[in-house]
Amino acid sequence: MLLPLSISKRPLAHRLFQTTWRTAKAFKSTTPENVAGILRWEPSETVSGVEINGYVRSVRAQKKHHFVSLGDGTTINSLQAVVPADQAEGLTIGSAVRLHGSWVPSRGQGQSHELQVQRAEVLGASDAKTFPLQKKYQTPEYLRTIPHMRPRIPFNTSLLRFRSEVISSLTRFFNSREFVQTHTPILTASDCEGAGEVFNVSSGDEKPRSVDETSKSFFRRPVYMTVSAQLHLEALAQALGNVWTLSPTFRAEQSDTPRHLSEFYMLEAEMSFTSDMDSIMDLVEDMLRHVATDLSETRIVQELSARSTEGLSDMASVDQVQRRWKGIMREKWPRITYTEAIDILTASKERFEQQPVWGQDLRTEHERFLAMHVGKGETPVFVTNYPRAIKAFYMKTVNDDLGTAVPGETVECFDLLVPDFCEIAGGSMREHRLETLMDSMRLHGIDASAEKITSSGQPTVSNNNLDWYLDLRRWGCPPHGGFGLGFDRLICYLSGIQTIRDTTAFPRWYGRCDC
Amino acid sequence: MLLPLSISKRPLAHRLFQTTWRTAKAFKSTTPENVAGILRWEPSETVSGVEINGYVRSVRAQKKHHFVSLGDGTTINSLQAVVPADQAEGLTIGSAVRLHGSWVPSRGQGQSHELQVQRAEVLGASDAKTFPLQKKYQTPEYLRTIPHMRPRIPFNTSLLRFRSEVISSLTRFFNSREFVQTHTPILTASDCEGAGEVFNVSSGDEKPRSVDETSKSFFRRPVYMTVSAQLHLEALAQALGNVWTLSPTFRAEQSDTPRHLSEFYMLEAEMSFTSDMDSIMDLVEDMLRHVATDLSETRIVQELSARSTEGLSDMASVDQVQRRWKGIMREKWPRITYTEAIDILTASKERFEQQPVWGQDLRTEHERFLAMHVGKGETPVFVTNYPRAIKAFYMKTVNDDLGTAVPGETVECFDLLVPDFCEIAGGSMREHRLETLMDSMRLHGIDASAEKITSSGQPTVSNNNLDWYLDLRRWGCPPHGGFGLGFDRLICYLSGIQTIRDTTAFPRWYGRCDC
Repeated sequence: MLLPLSISKRPLAHRLFQTTWRTAKAFKSTTPENVAGILRWEPSETVSGVEINGYVRSVRAQKKHHFVSLGDGTTINSLQAVVPADQAEGLTIGSAVRLHGSWVPSRGQGQSHELQVQRAEVLGASDAKTFPLQKKYQTPEYLRTIPHMRPRIPFNTSLLRFRSEVISSLTRFFNSREFVQTHTPILTASDCEGAGEVFNVSSGDEKPRSVDETSKSFFRRPVYMTVSAQLHLEALAQALGNVWTLSPTFRAEQSDTPRHLSEFYMLEAEMSFTSDMDSIMDLVEDMLRHVATDLSETRIVQELSARSTEGLSDMASVDQVQRRWKGIMREKWPRITYTEAIDILTASKERFEQQPVWGQDLRTEHERFLAMHVGKGETPVFVTNYPRAIKAFYMKTVNDDLGTAVPGETVECFDLLVPDFCEIAGGSMREHRLETLMDSMRLHGIDASAEKITSSGQPTVSNNNLDWYLDLRRWGCPPHGGFGLGFDRLICYLSGIQTIRDTTAFPRWYGRCDC
Repeated sequence: MLLPLSISKRPLAHRLFQTTWRTAKAFKSTTPENVAGILRWEPSETVSGVEINGYVRSVRAQKKHHFVSLGDGTTINSLQAVVPADQAEGLTIGSAVRLHGSWVPSRGQGQSHELQVQRAEVLGASDAKTFPLQKKYQTPEYLRTIPHMRPRIPFNTSLLRFRSEVISSLTRFFNSREFVQTHTPILTASDCEGAGEVFNVSSGDEKPRSVDETSKSFFRRPVYMTVSAQLHLEALAQALGNVWTLSPTFRAEQSDTPRHLSEFYMLEAEMSFTSDMDSIMDLVEDMLRHVATDLSETRIVQELSARSTEGLSDMASVDQVQRRWKGIMREKWPRITYTEAIDILTASKERFEQQPVWGQDLRTEHERFLAMHVGKGETPVFVTNYPRAIKAFYMKTVNDDLGTAVPGETVECFDLLVPDFCEIAGGSMREHRLETLMDSMRLHGIDASAEKITSSGQPTVSNNNLDWYLDLRRWGCPPHGGFGLGFDRLICYLSGIQTIRDTTAFPRWYGRCDC
């Protein structure tokens, strides 16, 4: 029989070697190399030659053996290892070690196998007396003073791992929809949301900034840290079509609440060539439903929910968290107008601290009521078409009458309310008509220069730092819209953790910027 | 015959309608909805009912018809549409339009089909006289003054789309390796790279910052914009294992070169439990090879390389760009030590402006020579083990003698050099031994408090803002290492664009922060 040339030409020894090598490699790869993998591994007989890295979570010393719990960040659970006393030196809490041993079917309770250690290497020693993460209960407040150590607490590790899974699931979602991922700028010359709430940026060797000295500063103009990628995202949508970004945003608000950070990630998306706000809300729904469906069965989510059952005060109950996930996975979230919302609130028998009044923003107590009653405490609820005066200048003015007496009094926008947590996302159609946008800017007290093009057709220099945003409307601006979602709030909501300060490794808020 | 209940209960008309609707939808979905899709679509007969959105790139008016080139950002190419004169009103350059018509096999040159338009809708008008992106050649310098319009130029659109593809390819790579994606902080209290090069951050209503007033400032301490995620990434690696991030970083350098930005994206990764720097270099190689292999056959890359053939001065030649891609896809990039590099440079007949001297950093001319000769002008080259004094304080001191006479004189680090472009990435093993790290900090003039734990075992307050980084070594620090890669430089290198200012939509550099 003729073998194909490429095979017959090879010397036999080489082929044999290849085969052997492949088998050996395949065998080796079945030996798990991390704690998550090894805990799922249930061979029927003892397997020797196991090597595993990790940190000592606790030690129980007995005469002949030390019982060591080992964690490595791949799972919230620990590996139980039995270490001969003569190998246990330096295996103190917190130390980084490599254990060599056998994976043996266990006769004890708990895990099905245990690691019987032949040799232990200490790769990074730990002073057990001063180790700041002791086994006893430590308050979240204390742990926030050591953000560089806090991620090593198994639950916090899992939370960060969950954060990573959500990023990755979102990336898959937007890829599948052919949205272009963009990097919007952090430094910006646009301070459209009011200078009181933004951070200023200056270079290290600059003298304190004043208006006169601006021309000598690093950027020769005042520069701020972005509060939202939206305006830039609109420019990109006009070039690329549908776009998205997951970028850091900043607010210099002096608020000290579990729902606010000074630095936080915003997921923002913008859709081009659409005049239908339902398409934006559909996108938000589809995206969140994708993430929940994608991740609900994963190990990491199960590990997080296990923590809820402990009934700790910094966690929502396991029932609450399950309701949140189920609510998101349910189809067709209610969509009501602001005007309908006011009617529902007014007609209800609930006693609010402040009575709802058309024209004023909804308060947290109102949003909570709507989430609980319209969404039945499970499904998120869209509230649309708020009064123009209480919403941002860039939102599209409603032309036809959607439940209000005066046309033009509302804007095409939505807030997404979720039970327990209230607002998690907001979006709108953007005002794409130049004249109406300038009108809206004047209404909001923002300087909008009426004409920047001189009669010669040459652009003039203007002090208005939103001129560029107006420009987008001068040359081919199709109807478009988008949304922003507080990414850290989403992590809070899905994980059940009660404060946003624990969703990110290095939280920054008023008075706090550690590390 | 009995039908299942759920079907038999439905009225027949409803079922028929459903079927019809489904067929209609399935048919509709095969009609491409964007320019990239329609240009690939070659039905043998005329298909009516086509609807397409986009921007007018150019118009040629004739008596009965106007010939319109339409682009929508999905491809660098334009769709040719034939519009009856009575439908052509408002179809000016730059305008956003929706064309309704038939896709007809074309008798002309160029594309196989053309869009014969029955009806044209102007969704966003454009004043052709003032439209800033005229068909004639416009210099890159001019275009950088209108960053909010520039992405609409077909080549710049493609560049941003390519950027998105690279992000997505990197995300897939790190997912497949089970690296955890992390969000490292932008605001930081650590100014480890020298205060002269960092941006300071203050809140809007603060008085100009001085040392005395720091305690009254927003964060009650000086806060900077991060220059690198590495230090924080090390803390996370100690909890999560292997980690990565693609985050904005900032340098307040007053440099005005095509290779530097004040705001740029850094791809950084950190591997835990490794003492072998080859594993870090393997990761860099595997990652870049993955991206190149993943994307080399994509349409977007072919479109970008077409631009190189035009021989524009702002682009590398098509040969150059192809050599770069091939070089990256080649296996086993050379790895030489700094000492070997000095030997090669000294032995060469090349006339350098400055002669290479052991102990001094390599200059651009030296790096270029090494990339051209060691990597044969194609493969990237790793240069490892630089002298300790010219590298960062956190790099691991070499214990054994790797080509130098004095042990301890070099550090385990690498720079990755590529042809034409020099340094694109750098990495190192991190000094994980507390005493050696403190020694190294003193050598680099960084205050390292010798002892922060008092005899009572309580941590003391210290002014050293890198105490937290030292802490990582106090309690279980395994050997680890990682790298950072300038993401914008990578986009430059792979796309062939000559300046980093054109790789991102809104570039910021000394004196420039538009929009």
